[in-house]
Amino acid sequence: MALIVQKYGGSSVANAERIKRVAQRISKTRKAGHSVVVVVSAMADTTDDLLSLSAEVSRHPPEREMDMLLATGEQVSCALLAMAIDQLGVKAVSFTGAQVGIITNRAHTKARIQEISAQKIKQAISKGFVVIVAGFQGMTPDGEITTLGRGGSDLTAVALAYAVKAKICEIYTDVEGVYTADPRLVPTARKLKTISYDEMLELASLGAQVMQARSMEVAKKYGVPLHIRSSLSNRTGTIISKEVRAMEDVVVSGVSLQKDEAKITICDVPDRPGIAAAIFTRISDAHINVDVIVQNVGRTGLNDVSFTVPRTELSRALRVVRRVAAELKAGRVLHDDSIAKLSVVGVGMRAHSGIAARMFQALANESINIDMISTSEIKISCIIRRDQAQKAIRTVHDAFGLDKLGIKPEMVKVSKPRRS
Amino acid sequence: MALIVQKYGGSSVANAERIKRVAQRISKTRKAGHSVVVVVSAMADTTDDLLSLSAEVSRHPPEREMDMLLATGEQVSCALLAMAIDQLGVKAVSFTGAQVGIITNRAHTKARIQEISAQKIKQAISKGFVVIVAGFQGMTPDGEITTLGRGGSDLTAVALAYAVKAKICEIYTDVEGVYTADPRLVPTARKLKTISYDEMLELASLGAQVMQARSMEVAKKYGVPLHIRSSLSNRTGTIISKEVRAMEDVVVSGVSLQKDEAKITICDVPDRPGIAAAIFTRISDAHINVDVIVQNVGRTGLNDVSFTVPRTELSRALRVVRRVAAELKAGRVLHDDSIAKLSVVGVGMRAHSGIAARMFQALANESINIDMISTSEIKISCIIRRDQAQKAIRTVHDAFGLDKLGIKPEMVKVSKPRRS
Repeated sequence: MALIVQKYGGSSVANAERIKRVAQRISKTRKAGHSVVVVVSAMADTTDDLLSLSAEVSRHPPEREMDMLLATGEQVSCALLAMAIDQLGVKAVSFTGAQVGIITNRAHTKARIQEISAQKIKQAISKGFVVIVAGFQGMTPDGEITTLGRGGSDLTAVALAYAVKAKICEIYTDVEGVYTADPRLVPTARKLKTISYDEMLELASLGAQVMQARSMEVAKKYGVPLHIRSSLSNRTGTIISKEVRAMEDVVVSGVSLQKDEAKITICDVPDRPGIAAAIFTRISDAHINVDVIVQNVGRTGLNDVSFTVPRTELSRALRVVRRVAAELKAGRVLHDDSIAKLSVVGVGMRAHSGIAARMFQALANESINIDMISTSEIKISCIIRRDQAQKAIRTVHDAFGLDKLGIKPEMVKVSKPRRS
Repeated sequence: MALIVQKYGGSSVANAERIKRVAQRISKTRKAGHSVVVVVSAMADTTDDLLSLSAEVSRHPPEREMDMLLATGEQVSCALLAMAIDQLGVKAVSFTGAQVGIITNRAHTKARIQEISAQKIKQAISKGFVVIVAGFQGMTPDGEITTLGRGGSDLTAVALAYAVKAKICEIYTDVEGVYTADPRLVPTARKLKTISYDEMLELASLGAQVMQARSMEVAKKYGVPLHIRSSLSNRTGTIISKEVRAMEDVVVSGVSLQKDEAKITICDVPDRPGIAAAIFTRISDAHINVDVIVQNVGRTGLNDVSFTVPRTELSRALRVVRRVAAELKAGRVLHDDSIAKLSVVGVGMRAHSGIAARMFQALANESINIDMISTSEIKISCIIRRDQAQKAIRTVHDAFGLDKLGIKPEMVKVSKPRRS
């Protein structure tokens, strides 16, 4: 008799057949006596189709109109889903973000939720309806339609789960849950039963496939428990929550690999206060995201500063950096776009020593050289050569015993990251 | 410096190319100094695509959810059109029916407009925006999305034109205007410069191709002048208004032909009061539309009652009628689905005699037999054999001199009737 929020992504409702399958699952939950609030993304491809239409009519479509356009995608899928549920003899009603009172600021295409009135949802629930809400969208206080940007449907689900005080927010996806590593890269990867918000946030490259960091942060902030699970099976997935007792015995929860970064090094940077600020302010002004930063200890009053940026932004970053280096009278600017970042993540790290050493030793055993090292409280990242990345993630994964605890992953389909 | 409402149908915005062409036209009007409110239908095929999706997920989709679904079609086209206009350097803003304050009753899928708040439109106009409004849709007082049914976008345009006190409501279509007859059937047909609301209403088969009767009735009621014209050319089309002086010289404005009806005759119906009511109440209860009704004079206390119904509903109608005939102890039920209805329409008829005779003579000259005759104040309809219909419309058209007054129609594409 719980109140459950379920969120289905675009691939779960990609066509009529899948919508009917999702309807079956929702009806089953409802018939078991639970109240259900469903958040749904646009049918897969819909958003891309709308984006290409907009590109055909305008080179710089106004963001307000983009929101008018894109918000229709979720309206279609939520109406269809309500029909499919109704067809199964279960009462269902669909609402747009605006109708359900998801009030956002005016930042079109990347609006932030300011307020949710759960009134309309609660009324419908009390009348026995399954409530379907269009994800990814809201309304400004003066009635303009807004969208929430990448991962917006997850955000809608988490925010609604908080607003209606749901027992759990189930995020349905096409993977079985969160794994100790990407099963495509590490055959011995196993599915985690539980993981903490913080670990999920650090496991960026894994996390991106099932949920955006932004929604995770909101879930963490408001303590909304999440259940990442597959819409293709009935198996339990991975529970994400604050207090994860079982975790405490496990030092490392997962290993992740990112191959989409490149490294820039500015040689011989004068060693005086404010230099780092000067460099990274300029890069930030150019809207380039910097990930790992390492500054070597200077011997001669000159430092080497290295950092990584997304590979797609390397050439743009280089133009900015070369200009800054010249102004600062630094030395040469080097770059390397054949790197990868390997990270181990685990809240248990806080209480255990020797984690870094064990990682470095595992890499050394395979003759893998470490280029840069960066650590946080619950994460250690090493920059290595990309052509050694596959070998590296497998050896580190097994070095922490992540292959030992569970059974091997069931048939898993891991998809590319996508909106919603 | 006029305020103009323009309505574009689904074929005018069928793809990005056409949307851009429509944007050009709107921008030109705006740049000429006029204020423009645009009402737009869903892109051609969109509604059909959504309908087949709904049919895939549900055999009896709830009408409320149908409205949620279908309303997205117009939201897409109005957002795209606003983008395309903006791209031309003209300020434009799109609104859904709900946003613009089109308040309807709760009759989902065929809602009636109850109230329009022109406030939001007037504000945007005063800021120099072209206002694009999604046609075919509205909102109930409690925020439910509704649609207006067939011809709904025309209705939105007419109602908005009235609400904002527009100088004219331009209905863009893919025909050049209203013709004295369907140019596909009558090569000598010419385009009318003006026509009255009443004549348009009677010219059903012509009218259906450019505008639904319902919108015409609203335009007539509120005196909204209409201009039916082509979105593919800059030529003036046909003005529809109340006072049409030029019309008075013309006895007959147009000739129309309907081939989608079938005839049913109940023989030997007892001649007593209430019999006709008994028959047609039952047919109406089955939601079958009856068009022409003719009752022959009874000689022996028994009448023959004939009427026409849409051909698609013939077999359903026959089942109902046979049951009624048996109950009334009437005679045989005959039917004929190879008929056509030929009508001449003209307000001038009121003041002229001999119109019917001239029509009958023209048909007689071609040895065309008349099966049924039905007349109204400004219209005479004859039921004839369908295989003689083509010959009949040409001879009647020319018998009233409709081929004489104008030049031949320009290149005209006449499309099948379609929603909105």
